[in-house]
Amino acid sequence: MKMTNDEIVSLTVLNSWKLVISRFDKILAELSDEQLQHQVAPGKNRILYLVGHLIATHDRMFPLLGLGERLHPELDETYITNPDRVLADPLSVTDLRRAWAKVNNKLTSALERFTLEDWRKKHTAVSDEDFVKDPLRNRLAVVMSRTSHASYHLGQAILAKGE
Amino acid sequence: MKMTNDEIVSLTVLNSWKLVISRFDKILAELSDEQLQHQVAPGKNRILYLVGHLIATHDRMFPLLGLGERLHPELDETYITNPDRVLADPLSVTDLRRAWAKVNNKLTSALERFTLEDWRKKHTAVSDEDFVKDPLRNRLAVVMSRTSHASYHLGQAILAKGE
Repeated sequence: MKMTNDEIVSLTVLNSWKLVISRFDKILAELSDEQLQHQVAPGKNRILYLVGHLIATHDRMFPLLGLGERLHPELDETYITNPDRVLADPLSVTDLRRAWAKVNNKLTSALERFTLEDWRKKHTAVSDEDFVKDPLRNRLAVVMSRTSHASYHLGQAILAKGE
Repeated sequence: MKMTNDEIVSLTVLNSWKLVISRFDKILAELSDEQLQHQVAPGKNRILYLVGHLIATHDRMFPLLGLGERLHPELDETYITNPDRVLADPLSVTDLRRAWAKVNNKLTSALERFTLEDWRKKHTAVSDEDFVKDPLRNRLAVVMSRTSHASYHLGQAILAKGE
């Protein structure tokens, strides 16, 4: 398996993202629909809210990384704009599980096609002018930030799982 | 501020690490010694345990990344080998706070000197032979994994902070 130096870096970054997503996949598979309603700690977010929050956040990455249209913009109001238990869940738990898989699978497939040059390109929330001044506002920074974000909520979801 | 392509990637990776550490720094600064004794959820780890656990984990990165000797090997038994509340805390809270700052500052300074070529080098837990077969067992993978790990526990520490 001979890789170029650039491929080594791209694949290392991608593996880090995939590992966190796969760990969340595993928790989701292990939890019943009823358990997803549990709060991660007394008075805190339900695991279901964290799932919706991560789907919506990852779904926003399609336009942010120049990968096309979003799949589930209807989740933002409930899971990003508002805190937990303000609005009713817009999808059934079954449909939310499906949305989780669909958004993350499609996103990961797109990231698998990124060369290191693609990773260094600007994300769409920064102007050409600002990007010249700060080339660290790139796609790599977005995905690493989202990897940390997913891991942050993974640490919370685990608590409710009773481990 | 003109950077080479390699510098852009190295600095983006480094920023991701620094951001998570700085967020943990902030929580630590805001919490009293007494609050550090709080559990992140009923029956779960104390925040103090998570702090000790992260110091020990990061301290292990010095030999793992070929950066020299560890500073606090005495923390492993309490904060890695055993779960919380089995052994007494080996350091006072004041000394643990100092160890947190010292280990992370020294480590981050060393990472700041890494070129992209350094990031691609093997870590010391993999043999030359195995590294040829799997060049993804590199220092970049170690630091990204530890960034996710710190973020995972950051998500838990935040819960006890009452946010």
